Amino acid sequence: MLSSLPHPPLQNTAYKENDSVGLVTPLHIHFSQPLRLQSGEQLSAYDLVIETYGTLNAARDNAVLICHALNASHHVAGYHSTDASNLGWWDNMIGPGKPVDTNHFFVIGVNNLGSCFGSTGPMSIDPETAKPYGAKFPLMTVEDWVTSQACLADHFGITQFAAVMGGSLGGMQVLSWSLLYPERVRHCIIIASTSKLSTQNIAFNEVARRAIVTDPDFHGGDYQAHGTKPKRGLRIARMIGHITYQSDHGMAERFGRGLQHASTEKNGYRYSLDMEFAVEHYLRHQSDKFSDYFDANTYLRITRALDYFDPAKAYDNNLTLALAKTCANYLVISFSTDWRFPPTCSRTLVRALLENRRNVSYAEINAPHGHDAFLLADPRYHDIIRAYFSRIAKECDS
Amino acid sequence: MLSSLPHPPLQNTAYKENDSVGLVTPLHIHFSQPLRLQSGEQLSAYDLVIETYGTLNAARDNAVLICHALNASHHVAGYHSTDASNLGWWDNMIGPGKPVDTNHFFVIGVNNLGSCFGSTGPMSIDPETAKPYGAKFPLMTVEDWVTSQACLADHFGITQFAAVMGGSLGGMQVLSWSLLYPERVRHCIIIASTSKLSTQNIAFNEVARRAIVTDPDFHGGDYQAHGTKPKRGLRIARMIGHITYQSDHGMAERFGRGLQHASTEKNGYRYSLDMEFAVEHYLRHQSDKFSDYFDANTYLRITRALDYFDPAKAYDNNLTLALAKTCANYLVISFSTDWRFPPTCSRTLVRALLENRRNVSYAEINAPHGHDAFLLADPRYHDIIRAYFSRIAKECDS
Repeated sequence: MLSSLPHPPLQNTAYKENDSVGLVTPLHIHFSQPLRLQSGEQLSAYDLVIETYGTLNAARDNAVLICHALNASHHVAGYHSTDASNLGWWDNMIGPGKPVDTNHFFVIGVNNLGSCFGSTGPMSIDPETAKPYGAKFPLMTVEDWVTSQACLADHFGITQFAAVMGGSLGGMQVLSWSLLYPERVRHCIIIASTSKLSTQNIAFNEVARRAIVTDPDFHGGDYQAHGTKPKRGLRIARMIGHITYQSDHGMAERFGRGLQHASTEKNGYRYSLDMEFAVEHYLRHQSDKFSDYFDANTYLRITRALDYFDPAKAYDNNLTLALAKTCANYLVISFSTDWRFPPTCSRTLVRALLENRRNVSYAEINAPHGHDAFLLADPRYHDIIRAYFSRIAKECDS
Repeated sequence: MLSSLPHPPLQNTAYKENDSVGLVTPLHIHFSQPLRLQSGEQLSAYDLVIETYGTLNAARDNAVLICHALNASHHVAGYHSTDASNLGWWDNMIGPGKPVDTNHFFVIGVNNLGSCFGSTGPMSIDPETAKPYGAKFPLMTVEDWVTSQACLADHFGITQFAAVMGGSLGGMQVLSWSLLYPERVRHCIIIASTSKLSTQNIAFNEVARRAIVTDPDFHGGDYQAHGTKPKRGLRIARMIGHITYQSDHGMAERFGRGLQHASTEKNGYRYSLDMEFAVEHYLRHQSDKFSDYFDANTYLRITRALDYFDPAKAYDNNLTLALAKTCANYLVISFSTDWRFPPTCSRTLVRALLENRRNVSYAEINAPHGHDAFLLADPRYHDIIRAYFSRIAKECDS
């Protein structure tokens, strides 16, 4: 789910010299070993695009992996030379002196396979055909992403991450890390996430997907070959996302029933099917932007990966049993008004971890911003992360 | 909002000879007086299609008007000769011996102007052009519907309704009745409704509208002239509706994470973008049906009427002041898991009525079915309606 950023840049408004990682440059790393996927398919070779902040220490025990959610990327902090205004999506969280302090930690942001920001995905050229993969790009799962991220850790010679951290879909990857590679992660920071989507979540994902695949410009997923882009469908998908990542109360505070162009007569209404309320303008504007920069095949695949994630499934839906193999320490955080991934989901996860006698800290933040709260700089939220990472820093070699 | 019926016919499964109004025949009533609309436009003449159940007594004081919500119609109870399986959308509520007992009351169901089930609407022939109105059909408001319903009351010589009753958008019409024609309604029964939509509600309506108007088959609303129908958009609109009229818990109970065609390998998943979960099948099936029988221009107009309704707007958002002119008695009912029109909306209305010293009964029903609960035969809910109408019956001439 995730992330209304980069758009409502509520706090990422200005680059501050003293507390940002500053200018960053993405790195492309090629992996020539095939990646076998859960679906049975495989990628014969692939690229991951990443960014790193801070310095890997000699013991290589201060690395922190940041996992992203639906529409974010490897660009987690700082800015690029090409666009100084486009701060990383978690710049308020990661940097020198910030909650995840790059004076102490070596932080890696990685773009997920199948995404559209540089890592191999549906828009990439299929070496077998010399054309974009398009509809042929295989379905990826949360577990597949984690497997590819483990190859990335190998590339850096990192045998164990100090922490793996993420919100929403990012949090699912964190949980999956501690299941697939229990010894390779000391601390799991799982924010605004869940061990499985609810029926309602799957249903919202399905509406978004139907909007995309029934857009006549979709062409069965091979729209690049047709020189089109299913922007109508992407807009609808994004609008649904925007509504469900925010709380009812938060939207009311921000837009209320305000009119976009109030008439001077007839009670202020223009009596029109065209844009009347301010929230309509907001939704159209955000969805237009999104349909420009995001890829439809990526949207389909990432929402499907969300649907599929369910580590308890192979254990007869017994999450406690599924988590028996874990051995990390956990910080779990939820937000009171998040109705896509509500606190009950986090509590279920915490309970299953405690039943396995894992070391778990849990915080439920009373915040008005719904699911998007995990991207915002709420001081109580950031203080908890800061305190937790201060403790982790003491475990690392200096 | 409203009404997932006719589809999930949870209780309307079988016609029972002894407690149904039985065979009913719609009536078309022509009104040749122009109807001046809130938008400033007018309809020079129009038809309303209605059904009636029970008998109007000599004093004409036992009439009950049923107002419908988004996708319903005048067909409130009984069945038609053409399709005995298509019971009226509130057949569980209205009939001989039912909560609204047609042995005592003369009940009128009316299809709203601008709808697509027989009353004058976008699919009707515009007498000025001899072609369907299409995009030219004016925007209607809740108040416009009530004004046309008052003309219908005049037609029957009904000076005062014993009760006006409705759920969701129907409840808005009831509230509007008691504001526009305070002396013409003795009892207002307002169920799962609100005095204004929230920002989130408007936002969901807007997504549905955008899906429709950006469907290439929409042709600016004149799809009839082009021999098309924007079914893609209608499907998306309906899917969103279905999700939001149900509770998260209700969907989980009904579908869970069940698979439509479980594979025998790979954890049961087929790893496909096509239908995987049972809830996807349900949504597609329901939205296909809806796109066959519902009209897109009607959908746009009715959702806009929902957005606009806000009787407190002209009173500086002071609902108490806005309701000062009312003089009816009120029964207000909400459902605990209704997150489109949650109990807080009903409580706000009840408080404003009480501040005006109106006679108000309020019930908050603990029901798992979300907004759709108002269409279902929950015994506690029906018992309240039954008791209230028994009291009304005693006020009527026998």
